[in-house]
Amino acid sequence: MIIVLKSGATDTEVADVCQRITAMGYSPHTIRGTLRTVIGAVGDDRGKERLRSLESVACVESVTPILKPYKLASREVRQESTQVRVGDVTIGGRAIVVMAGPCSVESRLQLLDAAAGVKAGGARILRGGAFKPRTSPYAFQGLEDEGLKLLAEAKRETGLPIVTEVMEPDKVDLVAEYADILQIGARNVQNFSLLRRVGDTGKPVLLKRGIRTFEATTRFTLDLNAVPVVKKLSHLPVVVDPSHGTGHWDLVEPMAMAGVAAGADGLIIEVHPRPEEALSDGPQSLKPERFAALMQRVRRIAQAVDRDL
Amino acid sequence: MIIVLKSGATDTEVADVCQRITAMGYSPHTIRGTLRTVIGAVGDDRGKERLRSLESVACVESVTPILKPYKLASREVRQESTQVRVGDVTIGGRAIVVMAGPCSVESRLQLLDAAAGVKAGGARILRGGAFKPRTSPYAFQGLEDEGLKLLAEAKRETGLPIVTEVMEPDKVDLVAEYADILQIGARNVQNFSLLRRVGDTGKPVLLKRGIRTFEATTRFTLDLNAVPVVKKLSHLPVVVDPSHGTGHWDLVEPMAMAGVAAGADGLIIEVHPRPEEALSDGPQSLKPERFAALMQRVRRIAQAVDRDL
Amino acid sequence: MIIVLKSGATDTEVADVCQRITAMGYSPHTIRGTLRTVIGAVGDDRGKERLRSLESVACVESVTPILKPYKLASREVRQESTQVRVGDVTIGGRAIVVMAGPCSVESRLQLLDAAAGVKAGGARILRGGAFKPRTSPYAFQGLEDEGLKLLAEAKRETGLPIVTEVMEPDKVDLVAEYADILQIGARNVQNFSLLRRVGDTGKPVLLKRGIRTFEATTRFTLDLNAVPVVKKLSHLPVVVDPSHGTGHWDLVEPMAMAGVAAGADGLIIEVHPRPEEALSDGPQSLKPERFAALMQRVRRIAQAVDRDL
Amino acid sequence: MIIVLKSGATDTEVADVCQRITAMGYSPHTIRGTLRTVIGAVGDDRGKERLRSLESVACVESVTPILKPYKLASREVRQESTQVRVGDVTIGGRAIVVMAGPCSVESRLQLLDAAAGVKAGGARILRGGAFKPRTSPYAFQGLEDEGLKLLAEAKRETGLPIVTEVMEPDKVDLVAEYADILQIGARNVQNFSLLRRVGDTGKPVLLKRGIRTFEATTRFTLDLNAVPVVKKLSHLPVVVDPSHGTGHWDLVEPMAMAGVAAGADGLIIEVHPRPEEALSDGPQSLKPERFAALMQRVRRIAQAVDRDL
Repeated sequence: MIIVLKSGATDTEVADVCQRITAMGYSPHTIRGTLRTVIGAVGDDRGKERLRSLESVACVESVTPILKPYKLASREVRQESTQVRVGDVTIGGRAIVVMAGPCSVESRLQLLDAAAGVKAGGARILRGGAFKPRTSPYAFQGLEDEGLKLLAEAKRETGLPIVTEVMEPDKVDLVAEYADILQIGARNVQNFSLLRRVGDTGKPVLLKRGIRTFEATTRFTLDLNAVPVVKKLSHLPVVVDPSHGTGHWDLVEPMAMAGVAAGADGLIIEVHPRPEEALSDGPQSLKPERFAALMQRVRRIAQAVDRDL
Repeated sequence: MIIVLKSGATDTEVADVCQRITAMGYSPHTIRGTLRTVIGAVGDDRGKERLRSLESVACVESVTPILKPYKLASREVRQESTQVRVGDVTIGGRAIVVMAGPCSVESRLQLLDAAAGVKAGGARILRGGAFKPRTSPYAFQGLEDEGLKLLAEAKRETGLPIVTEVMEPDKVDLVAEYADILQIGARNVQNFSLLRRVGDTGKPVLLKRGIRTFEATTRFTLDLNAVPVVKKLSHLPVVVDPSHGTGHWDLVEPMAMAGVAAGADGLIIEVHPRPEEALSDGPQSLKPERFAALMQRVRRIAQAVDRDL
Repeated sequence: MIIVLKSGATDTEVADVCQRITAMGYSPHTIRGTLRTVIGAVGDDRGKERLRSLESVACVESVTPILKPYKLASREVRQESTQVRVGDVTIGGRAIVVMAGPCSVESRLQLLDAAAGVKAGGARILRGGAFKPRTSPYAFQGLEDEGLKLLAEAKRETGLPIVTEVMEPDKVDLVAEYADILQIGARNVQNFSLLRRVGDTGKPVLLKRGIRTFEATTRFTLDLNAVPVVKKLSHLPVVVDPSHGTGHWDLVEPMAMAGVAAGADGLIIEVHPRPEEALSDGPQSLKPERFAALMQRVRRIAQAVDRDL
Repeated sequence: MIIVLKSGATDTEVADVCQRITAMGYSPHTIRGTLRTVIGAVGDDRGKERLRSLESVACVESVTPILKPYKLASREVRQESTQVRVGDVTIGGRAIVVMAGPCSVESRLQLLDAAAGVKAGGARILRGGAFKPRTSPYAFQGLEDEGLKLLAEAKRETGLPIVTEVMEPDKVDLVAEYADILQIGARNVQNFSLLRRVGDTGKPVLLKRGIRTFEATTRFTLDLNAVPVVKKLSHLPVVVDPSHGTGHWDLVEPMAMAGVAAGADGLIIEVHPRPEEALSDGPQSLKPERFAALMQRVRRIAQAVDRDL
């Protein structure tokens, strides 16, 4: 941590802050500048959160951490890129892995049509929501258990492994019976009880994030900068979701291509046999034939970055 | 919903969209402008989410809802302001209710000191976290069950009802045994499994929200515009949290005063006997004597808006 | 500046960075932590921008400034609060100064009606735009020179000094002939050619800022946190604009009251004799009688913080 | 415009609003829903801004425009993509046009080195700032007139046309003598006096925009969604700036590739012979040899989308 003192901090005040730092188990190193005194607190960083309380001391202007707050996911801990296996599919290897399917499982016919369509187009994993994290309690909440059984049937028919979202700690065991990858939605990335339960299953986890900006034309702003940034900071594979990321079907293809060009290891794309009748996220869903065309164009980008599809 | 068609939409396309609207159970009303055709879909609004799928139809430019997505909380459903009773305290009445106490319950001594301090200063409800929603898994997670028992002891000592946060559906029953008000953190406002369980307890709920902006000087941006906006849209009481809202102890007092001037029904304020040693949120905690001074100044503002403290 | 090196930086690399710091005229101070080496660059801070180029050196992770980028406006340079005189009005003293009037000068009748109304309500300064910084080239651009003359007439009639916006360097001299305070709009706060010209006039300047957030209910988010933050960092007076800050007339009164409770030295409020016919910003304008009522309520808040109106 | 009335609006109120709409020259069309009455105002849209003043009428809940606020730049006005010629370079054609060079012109040697380097790498246009829009008045402001002359010399040496920023209306004529393309910075996109002067020169204009988000890892967030969005809405060419857009040299290459995959017509890239000594924007500048490598990789992406470099 770097502790910046207010201008005019006295020697006694500097000594007091140093003593507090020592008492918490860190070594203080003082730098006296022309206008400010700065103290570095050196030591093991677990619990450094406590050091932030020094901001309550009257002579302290600010306390700033030096180290990133994560460890296991960082490239510092593991330089080599991690590959995640799901059945005979490898995520994070040379091949770009495409996961596709409907936003929600709505009916047997809809799901099996979608599954056949995405398999024909070249998807390697089937996506589909049985439980839906809707922002309104009045909206369609998903087929729940029945949806999971339909996903299992679609897996038997097509051979595609399943990725589906789990939203509640109580449902983790049930969903893990059916899913090959457990998806955590952006609004649950700090739902620690859910995360712990999901971690206990030992299944691969697809952790989503999304950013919101002032750009009203797109539903969210798909932040592709995150791809090279995360690939640099972490050894884990990165999957881009141009469907939820943009919210509009005619932006899905260019952003899927851009995501692969930026270094993504996979894509997750919404495909619906009849988007204009979808119970959720129709505006961002592709028809199977458009998905097939997208795959052709993405394949060329993959080859241009020395990868396969 | 208002459906705006692309320029150049043909009569056949307009008729097709109207037919889809009718098939979903709404009445289409078409307005032909000089540059655009606009269709209003009239009808009961549950499930109108489905109408958004019309954005997938090629001739549709945008689909915009007219009605707000909430009902029970709105002033349209209930014009009179709701008052919430907690023991002999009324929230939403003429008196501004102040809830105060430490961010986390850290120890018996710390909590009892804080509770005595906030009672002496004029707080009517004791706050304190037993379970902490920390952003890092390496940070202090709270005393959990032991923390709840200490809150119960502080309640016996001071007579102050308790507000404390619950983060996991599995813990709702346990926390509800001790708490008079259940607090839901901003990151759980869409954790529907938690919300349903909390709703089942029948206890009053303090639902937090926070906005983030580019203003790095404050930890979050305490958005006081929300006070008159929410008071206009909803009949429920509004409580302002100037501690978490600003992240800095010397901003707590002016923003508490501003919150009451803007129309808030209550305040929630972090008080710690020794902020510079706090395990969490030290920078934004007040010492009991500063809290007492704050209460004096807030009382004058309350009187200036014809309310009591 | 604080320069954080990447983990694994070698002694040679550390020495190289120190040498570069020395070559730029600063003194390097190295702190070797368990996981990171941090170097403080001590010295006079003008031109420290150059130090940021060290981020191009391969072993450097980040470069962070310590000092705020401003000097003359800071409380460090001048502890005592500055008072600005405009005619017989003092801004930044015990009295809260209210500036009011229409968004745009639209006609002689409209301006004189508004000026008489705000004077009767207790405003001390008349506001009104002759040049309008509209986001669309198709919108009303203001009466320009004719508007300035009408402001001069309104000043003669009411005795109120004038604050009006100037947007173009070429117009500064002209506007300064008529205006007692020159207003710089939020979109021009980095228009340095304009700022230099305005500085040359020696007139008081009202510098606006606004923040944008995701809160769609209000046009902008009026950030009252900025009031105590700026009062702490700077010796200059702070004026709150609840009209542009919220964009809605029924939010103006509560946010004006909250602004004064938070410590503002003044308010700037849009008043229009017939808001529903305004050529610009009608939705956020008050009628003169509502303005008078607002002044009564604001006066009570001012007294509660030991100030006058 | 769509005018939504508050629930409970009476027939008299509806009639009053319709009459106001008619008086402003538009035709009102009323849709009575189960919970709300909605009125469409049909007519030519210039000046529709005035309709927004209806929000001041007590029974009006909101006023929402239907049409986009721009015309000449839209695809509705011109379906065919526009190509911009600069010397023998065509922007917006089959070839991706790369503009490269230093952030600021710092010295003759630095500029000529950079110009030779970017020409060798395949850039078609030379960029370089003579006037710098620095956020701090204490930072390097550019070589100004001397910088323009150096750009002219670099153009003679390499044959590359020049793009450079102009920030002040007074300097437009001077800069236009030297520049082949005039650049307008993001902070000047609403500086209308500057825009009018630039429009008068008849030169091509590169209009920059940038978005800011909460992602602190990147300086700004390069929003590639904007590429397909703008290509759909406008007939004008789109150029991506991965240097300013990301602020870090090691993100420039992946985002340049992603930009071309998303459909950009050009790239603008900062190249400096010695980034670690740059007076501005060193952290995001590439050395010439890295630029050459980037061009190889971008060329492969261009071919994968059937374009050249």
